[in-house]
Amino acid sequence: MSDKKISLTGIKPTGVPHLGNYLGAIKPALEMAQSSEYEGYYFIADYHSLTTIHKPEVLREYIYEVAATWLALGLDPSKVTLYQQSHIPEILELNWITSCFTAKGLMNRAHAYKALVQNNEEAGKDIDHGVNMGIYTYPILMACDILFLKSNIVPVGADQLQHIEIARDIASAFNYVYGDVFTLPEAKAQEGALVPGLDGRKMSKSYGNHIPLFLPEKKLRKTINKITTDTSAPEDPKNPDDSLVFDLYKFFATEEQVTELDAWYRRGIGWGEAKLELFNVINDHLKGPREKYNELMADKSQIDKVLVEGAERVRPKAAAFLKEVKKAVGVLS
Amino acid sequence: MSDKKISLTGIKPTGVPHLGNYLGAIKPALEMAQSSEYEGYYFIADYHSLTTIHKPEVLREYIYEVAATWLALGLDPSKVTLYQQSHIPEILELNWITSCFTAKGLMNRAHAYKALVQNNEEAGKDIDHGVNMGIYTYPILMACDILFLKSNIVPVGADQLQHIEIARDIASAFNYVYGDVFTLPEAKAQEGALVPGLDGRKMSKSYGNHIPLFLPEKKLRKTINKITTDTSAPEDPKNPDDSLVFDLYKFFATEEQVTELDAWYRRGIGWGEAKLELFNVINDHLKGPREKYNELMADKSQIDKVLVEGAERVRPKAAAFLKEVKKAVGVLS
Repeated sequence: MSDKKISLTGIKPTGVPHLGNYLGAIKPALEMAQSSEYEGYYFIADYHSLTTIHKPEVLREYIYEVAATWLALGLDPSKVTLYQQSHIPEILELNWITSCFTAKGLMNRAHAYKALVQNNEEAGKDIDHGVNMGIYTYPILMACDILFLKSNIVPVGADQLQHIEIARDIASAFNYVYGDVFTLPEAKAQEGALVPGLDGRKMSKSYGNHIPLFLPEKKLRKTINKITTDTSAPEDPKNPDDSLVFDLYKFFATEEQVTELDAWYRRGIGWGEAKLELFNVINDHLKGPREKYNELMADKSQIDKVLVEGAERVRPKAAAFLKEVKKAVGVLS
Repeated sequence: MSDKKISLTGIKPTGVPHLGNYLGAIKPALEMAQSSEYEGYYFIADYHSLTTIHKPEVLREYIYEVAATWLALGLDPSKVTLYQQSHIPEILELNWITSCFTAKGLMNRAHAYKALVQNNEEAGKDIDHGVNMGIYTYPILMACDILFLKSNIVPVGADQLQHIEIARDIASAFNYVYGDVFTLPEAKAQEGALVPGLDGRKMSKSYGNHIPLFLPEKKLRKTINKITTDTSAPEDPKNPDDSLVFDLYKFFATEEQVTELDAWYRRGIGWGEAKLELFNVINDHLKGPREKYNELMADKSQIDKVLVEGAERVRPKAAAFLKEVKKAVGVLS
């Protein structure tokens, strides 16, 4: 057993990630996987996707796509553990047990549920219209995702902080009755980048302003050409601090490249030229991962193998801990 | 594989049953276990008890007590299957999956939850005061208890009918998306007796007017002596149709015995004499089971063995069905 702290990162399969996901969440998580400070666990939260994705072939594909994405981008399953949530039945058993120690009021206050209630109210509908119990109770499952592994650190964005608070609340309520069974996790603010989309708003699939990570070169080129620019003539000097193209360029270019393009902007650069420069740095960055991604998606048995091995590493820990919990509550002698 | 219909009976461990439970629910369920019409399954619903019992030693004891009770009263594990809910992890995995197909509105309308809300409202408290998520969501778990076994028939009292309706609703919502995966269960009205307690109200632990099933003889005698009677003198003629003692006597006596006691009542019987007659028929009925019960409780390994064998019979069916469900939703290829 290692004395390192356990860090846990959940990955919800909802389709091929885009550049915003990559720079905002995946890249910092991959950097953390390099850290020798933590024992890293990464899991594909497929049972969470089931709250909203009710098309089996879509969910199946999303699971592979997200696993392939992380592996292609450099997640090394020999250094960290990558597993699929639904391979670990102990989490679901814990999900029931902890439900019995979760105040309903806590769920009523969950941000995602409250947003749905507000939408329904504004639409003049019953507050629970269209809400299934998976959507309502998922913070309990998420708490169990964290607690079953005795995770110490959970890197999260600001919008995820409440999930860690809920996990701590549930763990505390249980420990209050049975003693120190659960380890209280801590949130670690993740310093991912805020990435603008094609139109300048935050890059988001729901806005349709996103650049998917593994587009074929031609499509990537075409998509980059859609980035909003002003109507200035090619020869006009341009302000790099007021250019979406330049903003995105900085995420991928070396310092030297940035300085060069900055100068070119001030001299006067055509938008087509600027976009070609941007395409080149992004493409250079993603070419290798894209090849690896395509290779994994063409032979999914490689992905299966990683996920089976991940489950084999996690399940003995999960089983031992669940036994401890079941003894604590009295269903096991 | 048998072509018989599957019947399922759930047994919630909440302490040693009393005569009212026995005559009202256990006896008809045991009679059903004799039927060659059904393949009978009986399970100890320990995870349901966890919604309210948060004392491990109490829950542990209740589980053994209820298993010992049913075995002592004649449930034959070579003819039917007796298992413990928490031994079947597949039920808990199904619990999450089906949550994603359960409208929250369905839970809001569950009788038990509505009663708690009403109590809170009347007390001027938040409607969810003291409600944990186990209490709120247990109808989903109960649906899974039924659905994972492809149960056809669930014998229930009138107050349980809604649980079967909810199970059917959840199964239908799932089948609507994925095809005929779940078998829709049917409720079978259970014709148990309504048994009066010591004071004439319905026998109930919460009224404190109950006669526990396996009291030692002396305590049973003492408890029966507490049955409410009128103040008529021993030699006064008495109306058997207006006597709690006689009402209870009829549950256990032969037709001949009933005719004899009826005549004695009309001639004039002392209440002490009548209660002794009642004690004798009850004690004759329970003597054998009581010995068996005490023997099982003194050597719990016999109970463990039955429950382990029950789980061994059920789990392969559970695992195969869960696999089918997981493939249907797309988390398994």
